[in-house]
Amino acid sequence: MADKAQIQEAIKAQGEVVRRLKAEKASKDQIDEEVAKLLQLKAQLGGEDGKHVFVLKTAKGTRDYNPKQMAIREKVFNTIIGCFKRHGAETIDTPVFELKETLTGKYGEDSKLIYDLKDQGGELLSLRYDLTVPFARYLAMNKITNIKRYHIAKVYRRDNPAMTRGRYREFYQCDFDIAGQYDPMIPDAECLKIVYEILSELDLGDFRIKVNDRRILDGMFAMCGVPDEKFRTICSTVDKLDKASWEDVKNEMVKEKGLSEGVADQIGEYVSMQGGMDLAERLLQDPKLSQSKQACAGLADMKQLFSYLQLFQVTDKVLFDLSLARGLDYYTGVIYEAVLSQMIQAPVVAEQNGALPGDEASVSVGSVAGGGRYDGLVGMFDPKGKKVPCVGVSIGIERIFSIMEQKAELLAEKVRTTETQVLVASAQKNLLEERLKLTTELWNAGIKAEVLYKKNPKLLTQLQHCEETGIPLVAILGEQELKDGVVKLRKVASREEVDVPREELVEELKRRTSKLP
Amino acid sequence: MADKAQIQEAIKAQGEVVRRLKAEKASKDQIDEEVAKLLQLKAQLGGEDGKHVFVLKTAKGTRDYNPKQMAIREKVFNTIIGCFKRHGAETIDTPVFELKETLTGKYGEDSKLIYDLKDQGGELLSLRYDLTVPFARYLAMNKITNIKRYHIAKVYRRDNPAMTRGRYREFYQCDFDIAGQYDPMIPDAECLKIVYEILSELDLGDFRIKVNDRRILDGMFAMCGVPDEKFRTICSTVDKLDKASWEDVKNEMVKEKGLSEGVADQIGEYVSMQGGMDLAERLLQDPKLSQSKQACAGLADMKQLFSYLQLFQVTDKVLFDLSLARGLDYYTGVIYEAVLSQMIQAPVVAEQNGALPGDEASVSVGSVAGGGRYDGLVGMFDPKGKKVPCVGVSIGIERIFSIMEQKAELLAEKVRTTETQVLVASAQKNLLEERLKLTTELWNAGIKAEVLYKKNPKLLTQLQHCEETGIPLVAILGEQELKDGVVKLRKVASREEVDVPREELVEELKRRTSKLP
Repeated sequence: MADKAQIQEAIKAQGEVVRRLKAEKASKDQIDEEVAKLLQLKAQLGGEDGKHVFVLKTAKGTRDYNPKQMAIREKVFNTIIGCFKRHGAETIDTPVFELKETLTGKYGEDSKLIYDLKDQGGELLSLRYDLTVPFARYLAMNKITNIKRYHIAKVYRRDNPAMTRGRYREFYQCDFDIAGQYDPMIPDAECLKIVYEILSELDLGDFRIKVNDRRILDGMFAMCGVPDEKFRTICSTVDKLDKASWEDVKNEMVKEKGLSEGVADQIGEYVSMQGGMDLAERLLQDPKLSQSKQACAGLADMKQLFSYLQLFQVTDKVLFDLSLARGLDYYTGVIYEAVLSQMIQAPVVAEQNGALPGDEASVSVGSVAGGGRYDGLVGMFDPKGKKVPCVGVSIGIERIFSIMEQKAELLAEKVRTTETQVLVASAQKNLLEERLKLTTELWNAGIKAEVLYKKNPKLLTQLQHCEETGIPLVAILGEQELKDGVVKLRKVASREEVDVPREELVEELKRRTSKLP
Repeated sequence: MADKAQIQEAIKAQGEVVRRLKAEKASKDQIDEEVAKLLQLKAQLGGEDGKHVFVLKTAKGTRDYNPKQMAIREKVFNTIIGCFKRHGAETIDTPVFELKETLTGKYGEDSKLIYDLKDQGGELLSLRYDLTVPFARYLAMNKITNIKRYHIAKVYRRDNPAMTRGRYREFYQCDFDIAGQYDPMIPDAECLKIVYEILSELDLGDFRIKVNDRRILDGMFAMCGVPDEKFRTICSTVDKLDKASWEDVKNEMVKEKGLSEGVADQIGEYVSMQGGMDLAERLLQDPKLSQSKQACAGLADMKQLFSYLQLFQVTDKVLFDLSLARGLDYYTGVIYEAVLSQMIQAPVVAEQNGALPGDEASVSVGSVAGGGRYDGLVGMFDPKGKKVPCVGVSIGIERIFSIMEQKAELLAEKVRTTETQVLVASAQKNLLEERLKLTTELWNAGIKAEVLYKKNPKLLTQLQHCEETGIPLVAILGEQELKDGVVKLRKVASREEVDVPREELVEELKRRTSKLP
């Protein structure tokens, strides 16, 4: 720890920083950050009694998960991982930090949101910003040319957190990707099938999966007369159509991005189009689009994609939507995004949980999954630029968590945080040893059992523990039961009691708990 | 990205650093680190053709987990989590970084190994060093006075990694703790029961769990005439007894730590003692130890502990060992450590996986679990110093991973990285659509199924995929099968084939796969 004089020096300097920012009328966030730092320093110095005072909090933009949140998280993960495994996926893990170099030049403007580690002598490191870039690095480094893998892990973004709206600096990503040179659109279709299965199984209400293709967008821009160098920026303007009106979007194109009104109107016609395979067929005949090789390639693949989606029985929820653009630069082909039709408490959920505007999981209000094809990213890591085609999807898991949490709250569902099947209890004093002995028998037989760590707990206290934590059964021991060689088995909910011979208890518990939900 | 001139400037400066260190004959590690930084900068500048060249590696001391390692990891986690749940534990999660302040003053000398984040404006942050301090912070912050929780997550230590010996800077910890004011030694005994169950289930060979008590050690040191201020340093010398001979340990006590030979010899007599409840009883009568209140309290609790361990049926592996000291400062009562009796490739495993000398999981050569009681830590975070008694255990999961990996290698076990039950294949051309249709039927029925992403794969290629990845069954479609409304179901191992009516396929697969290991 630094000595007192050093800290006092630092407090003085930091106070100056805060005063200056206030004088400059800097943003509230900026001032808040510097004030927090000042308070931290003051806390280091301790109170007036010289005692050290801790700041009891988690880092800005982060949170703990309590047992209830973890129980919901586990349930969601089990559903998602179950689906990934059903589709034959393997899993990998990568370190939480990468060489800074590995992340450089992958995220465009968002690079400023990357967390760097302090240079403590050694390599320059940064916390991972997503799981896609580490995946591409992993493939190139290990010269892997085909793999179907999922990866669920936390990523880090120094964004301005909005805790009340659930936007965090540390949040989970949940990615499924297929790398490899295959016949066109088969892996792409499987990614959509996976999104369909997961959203159906999680029971989040009705949803739509919008699909488009970067090549169709680029071809359309070209044919409408957008200059090449403006493709990306116009793309990100189009991307706002799910939140803003066409008037606002057009305005941005014309006044901010410098398109002519005629060009904007042409784009406007296309981006209002939605449909299925029929739309792809129609656009292949479109006098303008059919002039673009790129657009035609994209449209032909879109037709192919829909034919596979029919076989996968998911076309009822999939929509070819020319207004879908997505934020990330690295997409090269098909792109997609899943949107919930109805949101529980829509305004709260809207910008939930680590999702940044223009990011993977927040492009549209109810977006809960997104992805696409990125055939160039692995090549950026290969010394010879060797490409590995990839397509993948990222499930907006934080948003799903909070929808599930809200659902549990609205339905006043009791979320159990343990799986204990039976509490071993006693109705009389001096039976701790007997309770421990019976608990041991149950543990050794694989039964999930608890016992209170008290020598002489009241029966009521023991029953209350069951009520509070949702333990469905109590095995009660008393002098009489011990004498008779039985255990009194009580159903907490109905208070029904029955004497079970001690040697049959394990079987009886297994029989009963296999029937429990 | 920085511009070329800036990078060239940085390369020049860094080259100077390296030259100076070499001139000063700095340690090899230090020079290596700075050279690595230099190479990274040079790579940023790119090759002679001006093309950007990436350094394709993970950060020093970290590694990726490939699918095979992940499969082993999942198996180990399932066993451990299953045990924690059997004992009624909940789980929590905390952020990967904490306020630097939160970690300050908790790890003594090891604080220098903490990773700090760069000050990018905002709070001063550090990566978590273990899971115990964040747990204590969580309890104090949420005013939780009793909880039984487990937490499995990665922690970070800027130690000198020894990758070839499997010592990493990013590694898992796997902690189980019971917080709360309870009757003495019951939760402590359950922690030992848990270690016993986990090590038995993981089938790592015979093991011993050594127990001791900080109060017994302190009382013994006091009665032998060790000055108070030397308790901790003598403790860490005693801790070396599992790797070093008594002569070496005595030497350190006398020559380095300044004890008289007589005092050291008295300690030597005690630390050679091992036993069970009988030893605790005997020492309660010991003329010297019985003079120490502390020692007596520890010995009485040790007796109580053994009586519970008898009820838990684990005394066959538990040993009261007065030489067990453990490194961490925060222990206040019982301490314990599990050691494997035989090690697979002992010298390699010896310092495996993120375990630092003197650390949680590496105090002795084959140590795979350790813990103890720490009644004061939570109080360090509470503004009023309110204490929450805690006892816990940390499973040396990284060491267990590598033992399992080596076991799998030695036994030439084929580790499956997917759970796919059946591959949908075809023997003829132009059946992609039929394959996709059948695969969809299987997925929708919850069967784990794969299909190759090729329009016309050869049957041999499809069968090879099964052999390589361990898929046990193939569902083969051909013109004839389609006409007859059947699927040819082939067992990959035995090559047995049987025609199954299409409508019975799902049932047949469920029947067969439920029998699979």
